[in-house]
Amino acid sequence: MPIDDVSALRSQRSALQFFFDFSSPYSYIASEWIEAVAARHGRHVQWQAMLLGVTFQAAELKPPVAYPLKREYVLRDFERSAHFAGLPYRQPEKFPIPTQNAARVFWWLNDSVDGARAVAWARAGLRAYFTRGVPLNDAAALRELASEQGLDADAAEAAWSDERWKQRLKQANEEALARGVFGAPFFIVDGEPFWGNDRQAQIERWLASGPFTRL
Amino acid sequence: MPIDDVSALRSQRSALQFFFDFSSPYSYIASEWIEAVAARHGRHVQWQAMLLGVTFQAAELKPPVAYPLKREYVLRDFERSAHFAGLPYRQPEKFPIPTQNAARVFWWLNDSVDGARAVAWARAGLRAYFTRGVPLNDAAALRELASEQGLDADAAEAAWSDERWKQRLKQANEEALARGVFGAPFFIVDGEPFWGNDRQAQIERWLASGPFTRL
Repeated sequence: MPIDDVSALRSQRSALQFFFDFSSPYSYIASEWIEAVAARHGRHVQWQAMLLGVTFQAAELKPPVAYPLKREYVLRDFERSAHFAGLPYRQPEKFPIPTQNAARVFWWLNDSVDGARAVAWARAGLRAYFTRGVPLNDAAALRELASEQGLDADAAEAAWSDERWKQRLKQANEEALARGVFGAPFFIVDGEPFWGNDRQAQIERWLASGPFTRL
Repeated sequence: MPIDDVSALRSQRSALQFFFDFSSPYSYIASEWIEAVAARHGRHVQWQAMLLGVTFQAAELKPPVAYPLKREYVLRDFERSAHFAGLPYRQPEKFPIPTQNAARVFWWLNDSVDGARAVAWARAGLRAYFTRGVPLNDAAALRELASEQGLDADAAEAAWSDERWKQRLKQANEEALARGVFGAPFFIVDGEPFWGNDRQAQIERWLASGPFTRL
């Protein structure tokens, strides 16, 4: 099938919404399979950078490492689940971290440069933090990552300091809340919400054969 | 292979620990596959009835339906995840409910009658609550369920009122906490903890080929 026909086919189906936070280990894992899963079923992915801090507050939740007992478990499960998916993982020493600057760079790239560059930035940021411990909350480290990714570091810093991209991220957080997002990764497929890296199999079945529940 | 040889082989490997609460939808789903998964890999399952209220308190957690946003999601996901696993599901009107009486009957059967009867009781209780809405916290309903399961209803009620089985359940809760259990279903395989119905695939891989992580 010619490329144009494939694109036309894809555009007829709704995009798969993928909400993530740069400080979420399970978002990192999902970021490595979501494009392949969507492509197998002729779907586009709309990546949505957001801040878990905002959704946690609305849902009266805390990061999983903030709870006794659960903390020890998830620190083990982050790495195990990454290895289960065939991915490298190194638990960052400082975790979780504030990720608004990385997220603003994402929205700047997405809205005014190129969607593909935004996705590449998201994947690079998640990999940098969860495999090399690059502190995305540190301005110098974020500038260096931008340069590594072929971006102008000054332009990236200007973007994350710009009121326009601060507002754009705020809007993204509000949209996430309005759609019921309370954690990450969070997926919406044809209006159906799926929470967690461990919903991959359900998403695959939904994409392959539609709803499997009466709801 | 003669039955005795299979039993001998099984006993050489450690049992798979399966912690559940009678009021946990994901425990219900897991209760339907855990025996088949263990059997495929020559393992026994040690069923462990416990009270989520105790582990939630220790981990500073609440039931998932007690959080804004998350509540709406999980009420959808309970049923969807059951259907994904090929199981019937009907959300009980009263949810969650206190399940100490059902759990004490489990320990009475397990310790002084027969492990297989205890497992049958656990499966029957989970199915009754999550497919027929039988309120396990109601004495009359629990007596009726006991009768349906071929138990003496008076003996069952005597068991759940008996200080001995109250203490046995308390001990089970304390053991669960000591092993890091903070939710249900919770599995321990060769010392490795797995939380959630959605860890089935990881448990299968662990049983088939051992650790897949450096931890």
